[in-house]
Amino acid sequence: MSSRFSRITLFANTAHASASMEETLLLLQKILSAQNITLLAEETTALYFSLKQVQTTKLTDLGGDDDLIIVVGGDGSLLNAARTAAQVNVPVVGINKGRLGFLTDIMPDKLETKITEVLAGKYIEENRFLLEAIIYCDEQEIDRTEALNDIVLMPGDIPHLIDFEIYINADFVCHQRADGIIIATPTGSTAYALSGGGPILHPNLDAFVLVPMFPHNLSSRPIVIDGTNSIKILIKGHNENPPRISCNGQKRITLQEGSSVVIKKKEQMLRLIKPLDYN
Amino acid sequence: MSSRFSRITLFANTAHASASMEETLLLLQKILSAQNITLLAEETTALYFSLKQVQTTKLTDLGGDDDLIIVVGGDGSLLNAARTAAQVNVPVVGINKGRLGFLTDIMPDKLETKITEVLAGKYIEENRFLLEAIIYCDEQEIDRTEALNDIVLMPGDIPHLIDFEIYINADFVCHQRADGIIIATPTGSTAYALSGGGPILHPNLDAFVLVPMFPHNLSSRPIVIDGTNSIKILIKGHNENPPRISCNGQKRITLQEGSSVVIKKKEQMLRLIKPLDYN
Amino acid sequence: MSSRFSRITLFANTAHASASMEETLLLLQKILSAQNITLLAEETTALYFSLKQVQTTKLTDLGGDDDLIIVVGGDGSLLNAARTAAQVNVPVVGINKGRLGFLTDIMPDKLETKITEVLAGKYIEENRFLLEAIIYCDEQEIDRTEALNDIVLMPGDIPHLIDFEIYINADFVCHQRADGIIIATPTGSTAYALSGGGPILHPNLDAFVLVPMFPHNLSSRPIVIDGTNSIKILIKGHNENPPRISCNGQKRITLQEGSSVVIKKKEQMLRLIKPLDYN
Amino acid sequence: MSSRFSRITLFANTAHASASMEETLLLLQKILSAQNITLLAEETTALYFSLKQVQTTKLTDLGGDDDLIIVVGGDGSLLNAARTAAQVNVPVVGINKGRLGFLTDIMPDKLETKITEVLAGKYIEENRFLLEAIIYCDEQEIDRTEALNDIVLMPGDIPHLIDFEIYINADFVCHQRADGIIIATPTGSTAYALSGGGPILHPNLDAFVLVPMFPHNLSSRPIVIDGTNSIKILIKGHNENPPRISCNGQKRITLQEGSSVVIKKKEQMLRLIKPLDYN
Repeated sequence: MSSRFSRITLFANTAHASASMEETLLLLQKILSAQNITLLAEETTALYFSLKQVQTTKLTDLGGDDDLIIVVGGDGSLLNAARTAAQVNVPVVGINKGRLGFLTDIMPDKLETKITEVLAGKYIEENRFLLEAIIYCDEQEIDRTEALNDIVLMPGDIPHLIDFEIYINADFVCHQRADGIIIATPTGSTAYALSGGGPILHPNLDAFVLVPMFPHNLSSRPIVIDGTNSIKILIKGHNENPPRISCNGQKRITLQEGSSVVIKKKEQMLRLIKPLDYN
Repeated sequence: MSSRFSRITLFANTAHASASMEETLLLLQKILSAQNITLLAEETTALYFSLKQVQTTKLTDLGGDDDLIIVVGGDGSLLNAARTAAQVNVPVVGINKGRLGFLTDIMPDKLETKITEVLAGKYIEENRFLLEAIIYCDEQEIDRTEALNDIVLMPGDIPHLIDFEIYINADFVCHQRADGIIIATPTGSTAYALSGGGPILHPNLDAFVLVPMFPHNLSSRPIVIDGTNSIKILIKGHNENPPRISCNGQKRITLQEGSSVVIKKKEQMLRLIKPLDYN
Repeated sequence: MSSRFSRITLFANTAHASASMEETLLLLQKILSAQNITLLAEETTALYFSLKQVQTTKLTDLGGDDDLIIVVGGDGSLLNAARTAAQVNVPVVGINKGRLGFLTDIMPDKLETKITEVLAGKYIEENRFLLEAIIYCDEQEIDRTEALNDIVLMPGDIPHLIDFEIYINADFVCHQRADGIIIATPTGSTAYALSGGGPILHPNLDAFVLVPMFPHNLSSRPIVIDGTNSIKILIKGHNENPPRISCNGQKRITLQEGSSVVIKKKEQMLRLIKPLDYN
Repeated sequence: MSSRFSRITLFANTAHASASMEETLLLLQKILSAQNITLLAEETTALYFSLKQVQTTKLTDLGGDDDLIIVVGGDGSLLNAARTAAQVNVPVVGINKGRLGFLTDIMPDKLETKITEVLAGKYIEENRFLLEAIIYCDEQEIDRTEALNDIVLMPGDIPHLIDFEIYINADFVCHQRADGIIIATPTGSTAYALSGGGPILHPNLDAFVLVPMFPHNLSSRPIVIDGTNSIKILIKGHNENPPRISCNGQKRITLQEGSSVVIKKKEQMLRLIKPLDYN
């Protein structure tokens, strides 16, 4: 049986590299070399893990109909690959080598079986959307970032109340005084937002959830809104420690007085490949 | 300026009648008689509140393009009218005479101004969906009911754990042990479901939320799912006091062993008229 | 080594009897007959489970310094024995044969080892207090009941808002509109109250917690108060379905209009025996 | 009628000074000069607000039986004075000039009436305890701080999971992975801890509450423990951004790997004076 995917690229998060990850990459190389496919390794991954006799590529150079990216690591690694994968419209499957594995569906001990099944077409493809945050200061765009899980407004330094207003599209919704707010996708609704008291959004729901963090007003509650809307957060007043925007717990952007953040769904979706029997 | 609505029907909840409601109905009669419209009163309302010199009607006999129903009472009264109004596709506006008035947008002290504005076309129309619950026993349909706010599975008598399974469409989602579960529409998400820890669903979100009540498993959380899905609740095992289904806190249906409940969105929406400056 | 306890009484909950419970009782009889103690069986237990060649007793006839009650069953069985055991000041140890076993510390597969250790003095004794609820109507006491876990004010029939006032000692604390309220001991704080969003009270804290159920006011929060206080709940207004008081999820007392409930700590504590290595 | 307090010291928070605070201080000076008492001003307060013809003092020099400190500002100002006031055992009363005024009971518009009543003995005195946190690194004490509201373990920079263990006295309670933890007094239980989902502790309860912040394990719940216990927090593993300890949202101490924090009640209580009709 010929594979739906005839070119496969290996990717691993070099920031959290381990001997065990290398082992898994080498095992994958062995398994996939026996298949009738073209095997590539993302260039930093190849360099870092000494993958030999394998052609290298940038993720941005992918984009064929027959491309698949295999990510080795935890959810963090998959989030790293997600941004580019969504851009070039290439599906991704994850081998779980991390602590958290909601997105990385294949356990290492079932590596060969599961990868073989995926290549044989035994999988489903889920589309997960990404959020984009655009930061404005005095109506000038000053930065822009993306997240598969969540975008978080948080204090600059020590947890303290931030004054901000929330708008849906152009409509004022409420004034908040809180430590911050989490805007999460369905994918992210089972991560940080859930610890903060947010609901679970079903994976195929086209919506996102706003979860206020330690709100001063005890009646403040998570709000779920349709994915076609855009959210604007307007920072009010003066903050001794300017608040920040974080994406997936990583990139941080400092917000000066008068800054605003517009958050909306990206057009390109992440195509997530899942073996058939996952839960 | 000619009115968008040329036939208007007055409706009030006779179960919670008061002298003040009668006063409001008479005032409405006076205001509307001065307009170039046909004025009707729902037949039970007319009888109970002694509305004279006004033609009566059943709500089910309405359905013209130019029909509007004015409900006098609280949210409870509006919920009563909602079912038929949705069926005959006639919009509804509420005068708030009750304790709770999320849906009844016009305050009595602004009655004349607001009604005049609505007749002049200064309003927005929101579409709110209703839920339908169909109860099966041994695969036979035994009852069916509807709700604008929520459908609640609850213990028969004393709060105690009910064992049940939840399915989305045909897919098993989880086994629950809880005092019950609330399935709420966006309209109902700010009512009982909110007291139970559920999120707020934005009014125009096409989704509903499942909120477990006093779940035995502390990790059980509210789940938001797309409005195109159907939910099945399957009652497990034996219950000394058979659990029940309640709709909007009113109609109650007892569930025998082996019963299941299928809940989904109704096709007809409630058309809710809101004056322009409401919040 | 001679035992601290020289007279031991077996007790089991006949309402939830099973063949496996009988097996455990017979095994206990065998183990304990080999010890230099007097073995008794509570009279209903002896009758129901056909315990032969064992002297029977009422729990109320116990009370010696060397008495111990062994309860076979789940937490429910232990709660049943607790009331009398506290009255006669006799310690209790539980063999876990039920679904829930926070209080019944000995697992059946370690029965012989653990019971032998307890008899050898390898245990700690925890004192757990009980709550007493006295129900008044028009200032006349009309009923009285006790609970080791919790006393719950709940709707008579269908979940709906109850109007009530809470007093600590004679001081008005707040007006509540809620489905009810849970008043839990530290022992009960990990049971129903926890599902309702209450905190965990450390076992040796002399306090109880009030957890409002589905409060109408979203700012209503659990309150922890010192165990020396008494709580008064005053039912306000008219209720179509009179609310009820439940104790440990069992006894139910209907509250007429104008009823009040006074809840306070009982003087006698339950003495709970725990093997040394429990968690 | 002679006053219970014959020496009164004015204190205001110079860090949040305003013209309105100065006005209130001058008004107090005028009211109190007419009374048969000795009037003092805390030295920084006197300097900053140009209080003339008034003798100055350090708070640490107070301590007589007839001393009273009047704090002008919000709860923050009162917290500032509380530490020294507790040390020298002098009662404190607050004039509310801030945003938050749970502790500052006198509203400015009732200043004269209320102060006169307090001087006439019409008040109650509440004792509020303070927490002390001692920070150890490699078993060496490296720092120590106090709080009337709460002590908070929080991430060093960006919210992220901290690995730590909690001990009550010497007993291991649990391993936590969370953004941090709040340890609050009854006074602090209505502040930050409440936003984090903690219960309200009645003011005279001798207990504190541990509220995990965004816990990874959804079953983690607030725990209330007796005030006689001490809490130890042990930081586990390596943290890229070392976590910190904050007291009342102010002083921050960075915790190196292997640090631990021991938190317990201080012996000296804050004596809080409250006019009779406060709620």
